[in-house]
Amino acid sequence: MKRLCLLLLLGIATAAVADEGMWTFDNFPKATVQQKYGVDIDDAWLARVQRATTRLEGGCTGSFASPDGLVLTNHHCARSCIGDLSSAQDDFIEKGFNSGSRAGERQCPGELVSVLVGIEDVTAKVNSATAGLADAKANEVRKQTLSRLESECTSANSKGKGGAFFCESVTLYQGGQYFLYRYKRYDDVRLVFAPEQSIAAFGGDPDNFNFPRWCLDFSLMRVYENGKPARTPDYLQWRPEGPSVGDAVFVPGHPGSTSRLLTVEQLKFQRAVSFPAYIARNSELRGRMIEWAKTGDEPRRIVDETLLGLENSLKVYRGLESALLDDRLMEFKATQERDLRARVSGDAKLAQQSGKAWDDIAKAQARYRDIYDRYAYLESGTGFNSKLFAYARLLVRGAAERAKPNEQRLREYADSNLSKVSAGLLAATPVYPEFETLTFAFSLDKMRETLGPDDAIVRRLLSKDSPDSLASRLVKETKLADPAVRKALWEGGAAAVDAAHDPMIELARSIDAEARALRKTYEDEVQALVNAGQEKIAKARFAVLGTNVYPDATFTLRLSYGDVRSWVEKGQQVEPFTKLARLYERTTGADPFRLPQTWLDARSKLDPNMPFNYVTTNDIVGGNSGSPAVDAQGRLVGLLFDGNIHSIAGSYWYDEKLNRAVAVHPGIILAALRQVYGAEALANEIVGKRR
Amino acid sequence: MKRLCLLLLLGIATAAVADEGMWTFDNFPKATVQQKYGVDIDDAWLARVQRATTRLEGGCTGSFASPDGLVLTNHHCARSCIGDLSSAQDDFIEKGFNSGSRAGERQCPGELVSVLVGIEDVTAKVNSATAGLADAKANEVRKQTLSRLESECTSANSKGKGGAFFCESVTLYQGGQYFLYRYKRYDDVRLVFAPEQSIAAFGGDPDNFNFPRWCLDFSLMRVYENGKPARTPDYLQWRPEGPSVGDAVFVPGHPGSTSRLLTVEQLKFQRAVSFPAYIARNSELRGRMIEWAKTGDEPRRIVDETLLGLENSLKVYRGLESALLDDRLMEFKATQERDLRARVSGDAKLAQQSGKAWDDIAKAQARYRDIYDRYAYLESGTGFNSKLFAYARLLVRGAAERAKPNEQRLREYADSNLSKVSAGLLAATPVYPEFETLTFAFSLDKMRETLGPDDAIVRRLLSKDSPDSLASRLVKETKLADPAVRKALWEGGAAAVDAAHDPMIELARSIDAEARALRKTYEDEVQALVNAGQEKIAKARFAVLGTNVYPDATFTLRLSYGDVRSWVEKGQQVEPFTKLARLYERTTGADPFRLPQTWLDARSKLDPNMPFNYVTTNDIVGGNSGSPAVDAQGRLVGLLFDGNIHSIAGSYWYDEKLNRAVAVHPGIILAALRQVYGAEALANEIVGKRR
Repeated sequence: MKRLCLLLLLGIATAAVADEGMWTFDNFPKATVQQKYGVDIDDAWLARVQRATTRLEGGCTGSFASPDGLVLTNHHCARSCIGDLSSAQDDFIEKGFNSGSRAGERQCPGELVSVLVGIEDVTAKVNSATAGLADAKANEVRKQTLSRLESECTSANSKGKGGAFFCESVTLYQGGQYFLYRYKRYDDVRLVFAPEQSIAAFGGDPDNFNFPRWCLDFSLMRVYENGKPARTPDYLQWRPEGPSVGDAVFVPGHPGSTSRLLTVEQLKFQRAVSFPAYIARNSELRGRMIEWAKTGDEPRRIVDETLLGLENSLKVYRGLESALLDDRLMEFKATQERDLRARVSGDAKLAQQSGKAWDDIAKAQARYRDIYDRYAYLESGTGFNSKLFAYARLLVRGAAERAKPNEQRLREYADSNLSKVSAGLLAATPVYPEFETLTFAFSLDKMRETLGPDDAIVRRLLSKDSPDSLASRLVKETKLADPAVRKALWEGGAAAVDAAHDPMIELARSIDAEARALRKTYEDEVQALVNAGQEKIAKARFAVLGTNVYPDATFTLRLSYGDVRSWVEKGQQVEPFTKLARLYERTTGADPFRLPQTWLDARSKLDPNMPFNYVTTNDIVGGNSGSPAVDAQGRLVGLLFDGNIHSIAGSYWYDEKLNRAVAVHPGIILAALRQVYGAEALANEIVGKRR
Repeated sequence: MKRLCLLLLLGIATAAVADEGMWTFDNFPKATVQQKYGVDIDDAWLARVQRATTRLEGGCTGSFASPDGLVLTNHHCARSCIGDLSSAQDDFIEKGFNSGSRAGERQCPGELVSVLVGIEDVTAKVNSATAGLADAKANEVRKQTLSRLESECTSANSKGKGGAFFCESVTLYQGGQYFLYRYKRYDDVRLVFAPEQSIAAFGGDPDNFNFPRWCLDFSLMRVYENGKPARTPDYLQWRPEGPSVGDAVFVPGHPGSTSRLLTVEQLKFQRAVSFPAYIARNSELRGRMIEWAKTGDEPRRIVDETLLGLENSLKVYRGLESALLDDRLMEFKATQERDLRARVSGDAKLAQQSGKAWDDIAKAQARYRDIYDRYAYLESGTGFNSKLFAYARLLVRGAAERAKPNEQRLREYADSNLSKVSAGLLAATPVYPEFETLTFAFSLDKMRETLGPDDAIVRRLLSKDSPDSLASRLVKETKLADPAVRKALWEGGAAAVDAAHDPMIELARSIDAEARALRKTYEDEVQALVNAGQEKIAKARFAVLGTNVYPDATFTLRLSYGDVRSWVEKGQQVEPFTKLARLYERTTGADPFRLPQTWLDARSKLDPNMPFNYVTTNDIVGGNSGSPAVDAQGRLVGLLFDGNIHSIAGSYWYDEKLNRAVAVHPGIILAALRQVYGAEALANEIVGKRR
C-alpha cells in the first residue's frame, strides 16, 4: 500500500489505477493487464503484433492486412501521397482512388514504411562515453556516439539479410535509457485504395478531435520489394464484427511525442513562449490559406493538404496550451515535482547525483527564452516556410556535412539518416509556385514582425524588398522545383552546389553561418543542460520508482491497453459507438459536411444500424494515427484515427475518465469496400478469401 | 514608514515610489508631484487643462489647439473619418488631406467630440437604492438607478445653456464610487488636416508599440456649432521647442481601460479563456484580411482601417496574455490579494462586510467559463462580425427597447445613450459588400467551430448553408447598407422594423430571444456577483488604504505625471528622443517603410537633427491616444500616440523602469505643416499668429 500511495503521490499512475501508458514491447505490464482485463498477453502475441505493425515515416502507423504487403492506415496518413498523385484534372482527394488491380497501384513519392525487427540497450555504452564530461561536451559526444552506434549497427545488419535494414538510436525516459532500434524498411510503397476525402474526413476541422464522429478515415497501401508485393506473413487477421462495449483492446503503434516527464519550468516555457507564438502565427497563416483557397478551384485543391495539417496542429496546440492553463494540471505537476525533489534531497547519494538537475533545466529554459525567436526563425525554419528553401538548405548543408566524417556531422546528416533525407529531397512531389510564394512571404513577414525591422538579417533581406517581392522573386528564379536539378546538386556535392548560383541556394548559404551559430548556442547552452538534467532526473526516478514505468512517446513502437467505454461530457453520457444512420442526417450538402455521391447512391444498400466509429480508453497520441486496435486474440477490431478533445491534454497526463481514442469500425470499412466502392477483391484479400 | 511598507506590500505604489496612476482631476496627488518634480499644479491649471482636453467618442483623446475649435489628435484617431471620406478615386489615407481653408473642412460621419464640464458623486444614492438586495436584484436596480440619474441630470443640464450637454454615469474603483459626469458635446466635427498614412504610421505594425520610432501620427479636426467653428477659449498654447530630458510632463486624457484591481481569478479567466480565444480567432481573421487585400487595389484600400485596428488589438492582447503568463506578475498579484485578504480577515467588521467577496467572484468566473462561448458568439457579436448585422440588431432591439420606460431598457438604449447609438446607426459610412461577406462568413465559421456543428442555433443557421453562402446571401439581400433605409426603420420603430422583412433583420430577430437569455444569465449569474464582490473589495481597500489611490481606467478624464526619460532594454539604454535623419535611413521604399513623395521632396529643407518622437514615464493606456503632453506651465509639449512594448503590461501594473509613453514632438508637426505641406495658415493658427 505504501508503494501505491507513493506512486499516486508522484502522479505516475500504475495500471491498477488507469489504462495509462504507451509501453515499450519489452516492458509491457502483462500482470496488470491480466489482473484488470483477465487477458494473457504472451510473448508470441507481442512478437506477432510487433511484426504486423508498421511505421510510416511521414508520422503515422499502419498494420499489415494480408500476407501480400497490404498496409491498412488512415486516409489522412496517405493524404500526402494521394495529393502528390493528383492533379487539377485527376483529383483523387475529391474522387477517391481505387487501383482496381495490382497493376493500378501507384507509387507514393518519397514514402517509406518501416517495421521494427530488433532492439538493443546501449545505455551503458552511451553513458561511458560521456562520463565525467561537462554538459556541452557531453552533449556533443553523446551525439557522436549515437551516430557511430547507428552506423555500426546499420553496417552489421544490412548485409545479406534480404531487404533494407537500418538502425536508429532511441532516447527513452529523456535520457534514462538509450537504445538502438533496428528496422526493416520498404521504400517502394504504393497506393491501393482511398475513399473520397469528404467521407474520410467528414465533418472536417469542426469535427476533428470531437466525438460522436463519422469518418471513414482509412486507406490501403502496399509495400513492394524488387517490384513485387512484399511477403508479410505476420499480418493481422480482422474481426469484422469489431469489439463490444467493455472488450479489452490493445493499440500498437508509434506515438509521436508526449511531455509527461518535463519539469514545471519546461512546461512553463511551452505555455509562455513557444505555444502562444505558434498559435498566433499559424492562426494567421490559416487565414491566409483559407482566403487564398477562395480564389479558385486549383488554389483550393493545392492548399487543402497543408491546411488540413495546419488546422490539426492548431487544434492540438490550442488544446495543449489550454491544458497548461488549467490550474489542476499545473498544480499536479508542481506537486509531483516537489515530492520527487523532496525524495531526492532526503537521500544524500541521490541529492549529490540529481539534486541540481531541476535548477539546471530552469537555467536552460531562461537562456532559451533569450534566443528562442532568432533560433526558431533562422535555424528551425520558421522564417523560411518554403519547400524550395528547405531543399536549398538540405543541399547546402548536405554538401558541407557529407564531406565530414559521420560522427562530426549534424545529426540529421548522419549516415543512418541520409536515406530518409535523400528520399525526401529527390521525391517527385509537386511544387506550386503561387502557394510557395504565399507561405514563404508570410514567414518572412512574421520574421520581420518578430525579430524587428532593425535585426541585422531582417535588414539585409528586406532593406529594399517587401516580404512579398522577395519571396516572389526567389520562387520564380530558383530551379529547385525540378527533381532532376535537385538530384544533380545532391550527387554533385559542394562543387555542384557552389557552381549553381541558384538564388534560393544563395539565400540558404547567406544565412547559414548565423543559423549554425544559433544552433550551437542552443545545443551548448540549452539542450546540453536539459539533456544532462533530464538524465539525472531519470536516474532519480528509477531509484525512487523502479523501472515499472513507461517513457514519454518518441515515435517508436509502443503498446497501450484499454477497453471500449463511454464517458460523461457535461453531465451527458457519450455512447461509445456511432451508427451509420446519423451520418446521413448530419450532412448539409456543403463542405465539410458534404457526402460524396457514392455514399448518397449506396444509402439504400447499407444497414443504418451499422456501427461507424467508436471510442476506447487507450492511451494514444499523434503518431498512433493508423494504429490497429487489436483484441486479446490478436485480431484487428478497429483502426485508430483520432482522440477526443480531452486526449490532447494526454500529452501531459492521462485521465481515464475523459481521455478517449477514436477508431473506425472494421465492419464499415469492409461494407464500404464491397457495397459502396465495389472493391470486392480487396475486401476478400483482407478477410483472407483467396482470389 | 509603516504606511508606506503596507502600500508597497499591497502593490499599490504611491507617487514617491513611481510615476504611477491615472488620477481623476479631483484627486490628483499635487503634493507628491510637488515633492518629486518641484512643480505646483494648482486648481486653475487643472480646470484649464480639463476644459482644453476633449474626448473623441470613437475611443481617443484630443486637445483644443486654438480658440476656434481646432482639435489636435492622432492620425489613427481620425483614421476612420479619413477613410469614410475617401474613395477609390480620392484616397486621403494614401495622399493625406489638406482642407486648405475652412470651406474645405469636411464633416466626419458619426464623429462626436465631448468635453467634461462637471462631475457629481452619486455613490450614496446608488448604494441606498441597492442596499439589502440580493446580488442579481441589486445589479438590476443599480442599472435602473444609473439610467434614471443620467436621464435626470441630462434633462436638468441640457436646457438653456448653449450647446448640447449630456450626463454619463461612471463607476470608479470597480464599484467603490459612482459619479455622474457632465459633458458638453459637439456633433459637427470636421476634418481639417491629415498627413499621408505612410508617414503618420511609418513602420506600420512591425514598429507599433516599439521605440525608437518615427511616426507623424497627428491630425487636425475642428468642432463646429451652428455651422460655425466653435469658440474654445480654453485651448492649449504650444511650446514648439518641446521638452528636455528630465522635464516633468503631464498627460490629461481618457484612458480606456485597465485591469489593475481585478482579482487573481479574474486575471486567470482572461489568461485561460478570453484572451487565447481572442488571439487565435483574430489572428486568423488578420490572415484572411491580408490575403484578401492582395486581390486588388480597392480591397487593399477597403481593408486597411479594419486591419490596422485589428493588428493593434492583437499586439495588445498578445502583450496582455504574455504579462499574465509572467510568473512575476501573477505572484505579485497573488501576494497583493493574499495580504489584503489577511487584513480583511483580521478585522471582524471588514471580514463580515467583504470577506467572501473573492470567493464570490471566483464562483462567478467559474460560471462565466460555462457560458462564455455562447454568450460571446450569440450576444456579444463574435458570431456576427458584420456592420450590417450590427445595424439590424440595433434596429430590432432599439425598437423593442425604446418602447419601454427608460429605466427598464437594456443600458445601451437608455435615453442618455440614444444620441450616440443613433449617430452611429445613421452615419453615412460606406459599406463594402465583399468585405462584409468576408468578416461575416468568417465569424459564422468560427461560431460553428467553437459551439460545434450540433449546437441548436448553428444547426438552424447552417443546416443547408455554408458560412460563405449564408453570409453572401444575407449581405446581398439586405437593404440596410442604405442610411435612408436605416433612418426610416429607426424612426418607424417596431412597426416599421416588423414590416421590413429584411433578411438581416430577420436573422437578428431569430436569435434575439436566445441572445437575450444568455445576457440575462450573464448579468444575473456573473456580472451581478462580480459587481457585488468588487464593491465589497473596494470598500475593504478604502478602509485599509484610504482614498489616496487611483481607480482603474474607464475612458473618463484622468491625469498622469512623469518626465522625459530613457530606459534600458536588454542592457542597452534607449535614447528618449529620435531624430529626423534616421527616418530617411530606415525607409525601404515598400510599405510599411515607404515614405510619401512629399517627405522625399522636402528632405533638403528639413533639419536632420530635428527631434521626431520621444518617450516619457507617464502612465497611459489605449484611449490616451491623442492626449496632449503638457508642461508645468500648461503648454503643449507633445502629442501622445503610443506606448512602448512594456506599456501593454501596464493594464495590470506600472513598472517605472520599463513603462514608457511615446509622443510626437510639437516641432516636427509645425515643421511638417510649414515645410512639407505648405499649410502655413494652420501652423499660424496653432502658434497664435492671427491671419
